[in-house]
Amino acid sequence: MTTYTPTDQNRVRRLPKRGHYDSETIYGIVDAALICHVSFVQDGQPFIIPTLHARDGDAILLHGASTSRLMLHAGAGHPLCIAVTVTDALVLARSVFHHSVNYRSAVVFGRGELVEDEAEKWNALERFTEKLIPGRWADARQPTPVEMKATAVVRVEIENASAKIRTGPPGDDEEDLLLPVWSGLLPIQTTFGQPEPAPDLATGIAVPDYLRRMFGATEG
Amino acid sequence: MTTYTPTDQNRVRRLPKRGHYDSETIYGIVDAALICHVSFVQDGQPFIIPTLHARDGDAILLHGASTSRLMLHAGAGHPLCIAVTVTDALVLARSVFHHSVNYRSAVVFGRGELVEDEAEKWNALERFTEKLIPGRWADARQPTPVEMKATAVVRVEIENASAKIRTGPPGDDEEDLLLPVWSGLLPIQTTFGQPEPAPDLATGIAVPDYLRRMFGATEG
Repeated sequence: MTTYTPTDQNRVRRLPKRGHYDSETIYGIVDAALICHVSFVQDGQPFIIPTLHARDGDAILLHGASTSRLMLHAGAGHPLCIAVTVTDALVLARSVFHHSVNYRSAVVFGRGELVEDEAEKWNALERFTEKLIPGRWADARQPTPVEMKATAVVRVEIENASAKIRTGPPGDDEEDLLLPVWSGLLPIQTTFGQPEPAPDLATGIAVPDYLRRMFGATEG
Repeated sequence: MTTYTPTDQNRVRRLPKRGHYDSETIYGIVDAALICHVSFVQDGQPFIIPTLHARDGDAILLHGASTSRLMLHAGAGHPLCIAVTVTDALVLARSVFHHSVNYRSAVVFGRGELVEDEAEKWNALERFTEKLIPGRWADARQPTPVEMKATAVVRVEIENASAKIRTGPPGDDEEDLLLPVWSGLLPIQTTFGQPEPAPDLATGIAVPDYLRRMFGATEG
């Protein structure tokens, strides 16, 4: 387990009790979410691009078209900030002021590097596919050399990171506790629905077991 | 309806057919999501903070503790990029290469301004609460002057924006269509679960109708 050092970059300033700096907590959030948001700077202007991610040890993996702006910029080693956020519940306090959201948020800092090694790139693509749909890589048609060339993978070694988590019931003020206002949590659930076959799916191809298992499963 | 002009800042370069520049499409995505990711630059380093948002016409509203880093920085007029992303389905193609996600993504550029006018700030807080839980503002205990002072609202006039949307079935290559691989969509559903009362909720307070209506409703 890695413990990141709180610095000016990653320290959770607002409500420091919600801050976590151990890799177990941070990576748990990274792995739980389908997508991340990557931010970078060009000419002093911040940009954000949402994208799929995977993790390989202490690195975040990104991928995309070799010609895409994110791959070109991230692969060139500029500083990146990557955020992963999972929302768990709306928090309804008696007072408007104490309304909140239960969430798990990880923020990671690092610089990207294009993965040039073919075997490493292949493994990364397998990792992406298996994170999305465990069992899919062995079933689907695997990449051709042309597709491999058209796809870029960027590896972002995590230089610094932190997590911020809110759990539990509303934190109402003592003097509001007897107000006749319902208070509690409204859980947010992200689940997968019934698989919808492609219109041009050849007849006689059943929904694979690995996909059937995902039905009703939660993202987070 | 506003139509934003595609510039170097907001143009959807990769797969331009997925790009949209009209406010109806962009604001529809902004309004559909619970949270946004705000990015900003300090000393050349990009930062992202996930937060709740609301919209007032052509502006995004953010709020937080008056002393929070996001409110201080965003309120000071530095350039911001705000991303809102809704994921709708995993897209399973016959080939690994054409796997994708159906999503709706809005990216907005602008600069923040602290809302100082008390009535405007009050209206903004009502807007936040009603976006989160329609009907809640009138039921919950409304802000005191001390709470108003502790809360900052930042208004970000949208200078430029774009949306990127993927819908529909997988886009497999012609020569893969007859492969014996299941292909189609795995829908992602974000719903609200059963309300969970606070442990210290006074007896005899029923779940309000406006909350009961949200059960099973989708975020997006």
